Amino acid sequence: MVIVQQILRGSVADKLESPTDVMTTDPSQSKMLETGHEFLPKFDDKGLLSAVVIDDTTSNVLMVAFMDAEALTATRSSGLAHFHSRSRGKLWQKGETSGNVLRVQSILVDCDQDAIVLRCKAAGPTCHTGATSCFYRVLENDRLESVVD
Amino acid sequence: MVIVQQILRGSVADKLESPTDVMTTDPSQSKMLETGHEFLPKFDDKGLLSAVVIDDTTSNVLMVAFMDAEALTATRSSGLAHFHSRSRGKLWQKGETSGNVLRVQSILVDCDQDAIVLRCKAAGPTCHTGATSCFYRVLENDRLESVVD
Repeated sequence: MVIVQQILRGSVADKLESPTDVMTTDPSQSKMLETGHEFLPKFDDKGLLSAVVIDDTTSNVLMVAFMDAEALTATRSSGLAHFHSRSRGKLWQKGETSGNVLRVQSILVDCDQDAIVLRCKAAGPTCHTGATSCFYRVLENDRLESVVD
Repeated sequence: MVIVQQILRGSVADKLESPTDVMTTDPSQSKMLETGHEFLPKFDDKGLLSAVVIDDTTSNVLMVAFMDAEALTATRSSGLAHFHSRSRGKLWQKGETSGNVLRVQSILVDCDQDAIVLRCKAAGPTCHTGATSCFYRVLENDRLESVVD
């Protein structure tokens, strides 16, 4: 699996817009990623993929972070969301100190397998600020205003 | 603004879990990003931030991509979602060839301003495969299965 991941890493265009774009990559590889049943997570040149956490009840976006292979494995084996901290350069389990863990209900995978969605049940506020979601502000006329629930 | 962005780039922990973690960064800078009304997008060392597109009607995740400052400016000025293609190294407007543009209804910003959510009305299928969303598969017992709408 490690070998497969290394081969796939960064080898397929990140987001393809048109048939012309698709042809700039290996069509058979794109097709395998897009239509196959095999989970072949495509990590970028830093070994990361994007992970979006959605509240399984409200469908609100709770947070966005990155996963490496270690975080993905830990998430799948424990059922609790784990990520890779880019600033600290290490694995972290969401809620490991606060107790506000994210219990993964389902994992969605995008077309080229470089991004995943975790639908989760949150044990408490997801944001370290105490907000339910990290996305607690909306951009309005160049200013950030609180989201009204 | 460019100077501010350069100062902020990568200088605040990407996702902070606990008060202890918060103290490893400049508290005044974290507070400004988290509680201020100023939009200070924090780009990573490649000049990118994460952008999650949500269907404004269904709240489903349509796609995940990256934006640089150019894509963010183009999005805000046109009202149509633009991204930065990492593989092609350039700006692209979603739907520029297919016509399936994403009309931005609102922009949400996360706590440390390194990720945004675009709530959009989609003119057609978002995925280049023809699927409504790029997240058309769910991981079940190590296999990718089609999402049942």
